[in-house]
Amino acid sequence: MNFGSDNASGVHPAIMDALAAANQGHASGYGRDPLTEEAVERVRAVFEAPRAEIFFVGVGTASNALALAQLCPPFGRIFCHRGAHIETSESGAPGFMAGGAQMALIDGADGRVTPAALNDALATYPQDDEHDGLNAVLSLSNATEMGTVYAPERIAPLTAIAHAQDMAVHMDGARFANAVASTGASPAELTWRSGVDALSLGGTKDGCMALEAVILFDPDRARHFSFRRMRAGHLWSKHRFLAAQMLAWLDDELWLRLAGHANAKARTLSHELTQISFAEILNPVEANEIFVRLPQRRIEALRKGGLRAADWPMPGDSDTRMTIRLVTSWATTEAEITALVAALRR
Amino acid sequence: MNFGSDNASGVHPAIMDALAAANQGHASGYGRDPLTEEAVERVRAVFEAPRAEIFFVGVGTASNALALAQLCPPFGRIFCHRGAHIETSESGAPGFMAGGAQMALIDGADGRVTPAALNDALATYPQDDEHDGLNAVLSLSNATEMGTVYAPERIAPLTAIAHAQDMAVHMDGARFANAVASTGASPAELTWRSGVDALSLGGTKDGCMALEAVILFDPDRARHFSFRRMRAGHLWSKHRFLAAQMLAWLDDELWLRLAGHANAKARTLSHELTQISFAEILNPVEANEIFVRLPQRRIEALRKGGLRAADWPMPGDSDTRMTIRLVTSWATTEAEITALVAALRR
Amino acid sequence: MNFGSDNASGVHPAIMDALAAANQGHASGYGRDPLTEEAVERVRAVFEAPRAEIFFVGVGTASNALALAQLCPPFGRIFCHRGAHIETSESGAPGFMAGGAQMALIDGADGRVTPAALNDALATYPQDDEHDGLNAVLSLSNATEMGTVYAPERIAPLTAIAHAQDMAVHMDGARFANAVASTGASPAELTWRSGVDALSLGGTKDGCMALEAVILFDPDRARHFSFRRMRAGHLWSKHRFLAAQMLAWLDDELWLRLAGHANAKARTLSHELTQISFAEILNPVEANEIFVRLPQRRIEALRKGGLRAADWPMPGDSDTRMTIRLVTSWATTEAEITALVAALRR
Amino acid sequence: MNFGSDNASGVHPAIMDALAAANQGHASGYGRDPLTEEAVERVRAVFEAPRAEIFFVGVGTASNALALAQLCPPFGRIFCHRGAHIETSESGAPGFMAGGAQMALIDGADGRVTPAALNDALATYPQDDEHDGLNAVLSLSNATEMGTVYAPERIAPLTAIAHAQDMAVHMDGARFANAVASTGASPAELTWRSGVDALSLGGTKDGCMALEAVILFDPDRARHFSFRRMRAGHLWSKHRFLAAQMLAWLDDELWLRLAGHANAKARTLSHELTQISFAEILNPVEANEIFVRLPQRRIEALRKGGLRAADWPMPGDSDTRMTIRLVTSWATTEAEITALVAALRR
Repeated sequence: MNFGSDNASGVHPAIMDALAAANQGHASGYGRDPLTEEAVERVRAVFEAPRAEIFFVGVGTASNALALAQLCPPFGRIFCHRGAHIETSESGAPGFMAGGAQMALIDGADGRVTPAALNDALATYPQDDEHDGLNAVLSLSNATEMGTVYAPERIAPLTAIAHAQDMAVHMDGARFANAVASTGASPAELTWRSGVDALSLGGTKDGCMALEAVILFDPDRARHFSFRRMRAGHLWSKHRFLAAQMLAWLDDELWLRLAGHANAKARTLSHELTQISFAEILNPVEANEIFVRLPQRRIEALRKGGLRAADWPMPGDSDTRMTIRLVTSWATTEAEITALVAALRR
Repeated sequence: MNFGSDNASGVHPAIMDALAAANQGHASGYGRDPLTEEAVERVRAVFEAPRAEIFFVGVGTASNALALAQLCPPFGRIFCHRGAHIETSESGAPGFMAGGAQMALIDGADGRVTPAALNDALATYPQDDEHDGLNAVLSLSNATEMGTVYAPERIAPLTAIAHAQDMAVHMDGARFANAVASTGASPAELTWRSGVDALSLGGTKDGCMALEAVILFDPDRARHFSFRRMRAGHLWSKHRFLAAQMLAWLDDELWLRLAGHANAKARTLSHELTQISFAEILNPVEANEIFVRLPQRRIEALRKGGLRAADWPMPGDSDTRMTIRLVTSWATTEAEITALVAALRR
Repeated sequence: MNFGSDNASGVHPAIMDALAAANQGHASGYGRDPLTEEAVERVRAVFEAPRAEIFFVGVGTASNALALAQLCPPFGRIFCHRGAHIETSESGAPGFMAGGAQMALIDGADGRVTPAALNDALATYPQDDEHDGLNAVLSLSNATEMGTVYAPERIAPLTAIAHAQDMAVHMDGARFANAVASTGASPAELTWRSGVDALSLGGTKDGCMALEAVILFDPDRARHFSFRRMRAGHLWSKHRFLAAQMLAWLDDELWLRLAGHANAKARTLSHELTQISFAEILNPVEANEIFVRLPQRRIEALRKGGLRAADWPMPGDSDTRMTIRLVTSWATTEAEITALVAALRR
Repeated sequence: MNFGSDNASGVHPAIMDALAAANQGHASGYGRDPLTEEAVERVRAVFEAPRAEIFFVGVGTASNALALAQLCPPFGRIFCHRGAHIETSESGAPGFMAGGAQMALIDGADGRVTPAALNDALATYPQDDEHDGLNAVLSLSNATEMGTVYAPERIAPLTAIAHAQDMAVHMDGARFANAVASTGASPAELTWRSGVDALSLGGTKDGCMALEAVILFDPDRARHFSFRRMRAGHLWSKHRFLAAQMLAWLDDELWLRLAGHANAKARTLSHELTQISFAEILNPVEANEIFVRLPQRRIEALRKGGLRAADWPMPGDSDTRMTIRLVTSWATTEAEITALVAALRR
């Protein structure tokens, strides 16, 4: 019963096979190999973005922070939801990569930024002089850290506000595949067609070993990104092994099938939880995460029974009822769901 | 005939098998898995350094720059050979990671720093006031970028000079396995027993897919390194796949056998080159790199015949005779050597 | 009627005289002159801190950011009030100087942090792993940006909480003289005796031309600060002109007399404002700033009549009633107060 | 006999008077005052550059590092003479301000860069891939750190080379007034007409108290500079006192008269030294610095007699003959020259 994180799952066999297949003879390093070229073209095709610039790295935090550094001057402010991973869980990577950029936090239910909340936050940091820093980037996570998603019609109004202030828009897509699978919108609709300038696309949580991509939709914004990646130590020498993961992940929509599986398992589990009187689900389950408040002694019992799940303190928790996060993945089995529900019913 | 770089070679089958074997079920992320614990202990054992702190990352530049940032305050100077990879080929990564640290370059034949040259360089940057910056770190590459090595008796006098000035000593060990195989000295003798404070140990060029380790021999110097790695985006979530590479690489001294193979191939090739009248080898071939000056039309002919090798402009080159670098690897075959020699003799 | 900012006032004549007096012949640069030595000793005496390390700079933002960078590792978090100058008005200087450090904001009435609010903020950023960043510094402004002050008995409980987590405590003393004058506590009581590790002491707003000091009470925490100041471009070459300001400012408690004057003028004005039915003072007036909500048309009329005062949007403002900030200084005259009150009564 | 540094001299009386005159009543802070506006226009007029953007700061290192950071991306390389102040004496300020930029050093006699040496240096750092960093800026000091100057005809060929590689050109003008006075060329000829993109113009060494200006000749390159200055803590609140210095300094060409005085005193002293058999002047004396090699026991005797001058170790020095630097300033008197010569002749 491992619902601790989608990165606790392993690597999908098709990805593993692709790594082995790529391991033939010599190949030029640093992305100057044919597999990389092919993988870049494949990403462009999937996003219907033939002019986009694509860069692969191995870690999601790097993918976020490098993209943000590309969009944000060192004296800029990055606006994001209060619960955004880039604020809470990256040990300051965006500020570091961007040379000291500041964060500005936005409140919002269910992990989502709304136009009203964005406008409020922007009003707090006026743009009239150099004391205030420069409002530079809006970063949205899709799927969000609270297991909800932004459909295109939620994204476009936000990017419009940002662009009206000359701000760029970044999307943290550590779980982008889950958002595509959940909304049914196309990758293009969820990104550049809705005004997103840069996407950090995550493969690792969705069946890869170590694969993330920075997608800069406007090539003018990609200038010198390769230097930025290099000096941060994020250019793989044996780069074909990033490319191989990407190709296998996109082949036959494996990425969406895996994310769809994870989403479906979350829906099933969430449906079961609604049948359990003492379980309180905190927000819509639209991707592969469930936040559920349970009696503390129940949580302890589940953990003794083998459950892996993160504590997730939320407003409204008490000493006796607390929130945990359950994450499903491409590898979550029906048996794990059944076991968890049975344990809860016991 | 690919002698372009040791990172153009693939992944050794034993490493690939280990990756597959590690891909069983769930495992906690971020290094909190049993394989990582085992791999850390194994590195400690190999280096006879039970108190050393060990951190894995995927890219050599990250391994160097993070180690340097740990040793060097933001206003410090890092002394290294003029041809050191950290100066010539990392796009400023050390300065970036260390928050603006400066480099100070040392001249020296065959890619090696000598005590006299180090003293000269230190004299150029006196320590008497805050205008000068702080002399903070000496970084040595072993094997060097010119295919030579430092035996322990070359290292100890250098670290003594550095320590006498309160400077720390870093070793760029992108090809450390080649240095161990070449000198016959133990890992401990080549590092902490000779006064090295931190080693960036490279697996990628020596048969791994993406594996480097930062080894901080003094745990007091390791304080908060994990934060530093995290914020630079270098903490793998599926960390077991770094650990699995390390374990397989160290198993039965695979790392030294692979490096020994590469070294031997370089020796063979170098021996053959000495038989060819128009070929001039520029420095001792002690590891897996050969720098050879050849007639320009010969180089062109070789390249047409399929040779991959880097141009390496050196003092003494002319319009008609230029230097190229030939790198052997764990995967270099006798056939490649034979083919190259035959092409040269043609 | 200039109540725009205390930095809109000029330089006190005694300070100006001291600058002229210091302008005799040659003096060694960079703080190696006798006046600097004397000024450093004087500060130590005033703070009863003979071992403190003292550094002078010309700008308050530099004084804050350099002190914070000294206390905060690049992956650290700096906790401060949501309205703190270091967060709202320094364009990200602390994060820049500290190599990417993050801010964590604390709510609190009247511009003050309370123990409960500090504990809440700390609980939001747990210290259990490297994803969270390191809780490193608590920064308190005294006087606060809302014109209130911390007496020692308010400071000590906050520093105790910080120290219990191994965090350092910084005080933004841009208006420290006003806090001393207001509380009647000694400089030592308001700082190191209450657990403050570093003070950014501001002279510029209190009658100097350009003079701020970083005071590091624990000399062990001052290590290499001089390099940090130098590389940020904050070491004056003609350093005697900083020292001369400091000496004149401290002479005969000029600094406290000037701050006391400013505080008294604010009290007078605030008393007058309480007599005016449509004026609403938002928080206790304990130093030299008044935040007053007025009918919008009154504000416009005052401005037409020559008032200089900053808009200061506050919760509770409406389209017709808005808040402005009135700042008094060492140079505020009775006539200005009278004129403003008369204009309001008109 | 103080020939230690031009910053050991005091403030010219006209500058001091201007500071006193500016100290009337209130003035808006942060450069939003009439004096600043006037001073900016005056600089534009002097440089015949009506579209230039001008920013004042108090310290020369800040002026250099901020200008360089504006021109150089964080992954860029700054090329300068091996003896450039920005490399030897600013504790890494350029790399810090520019977010980790690297230096590349150029050799050259008499402190000057030549086109051939620049081309050699550029050839060492090819631009073909991201490993190498980006060649971004050429920085020239005028007058140089060795007391020589660049006339326009020396500057233009260097800027042409830089611009051909898309590099920007910065001039460290800590002693720019001395260069103007020495060459007789106009400020415009020595800067933008010869291809200089940014000038760090120094007033402090030439009679001011604390005044430096960053001049960005192309307004497109000035974008957001004010944020950069603010976040580095270099925006004075009582900004009128920077502006007042600038106006007085430029009035009636005071700046050139003071620099001309310093240059003339250096010429006189240098002429006297050539008459002294054991004194060896190392390079042309074109500004206000003399580098002279003397018997060590003579140096000791002079110091006992009150001489202030910096040791300046140079190639060719021995244990018995060493080089010292003699700097004249606006305040150097005929009596000091006479005393020094007499002491040497004794």
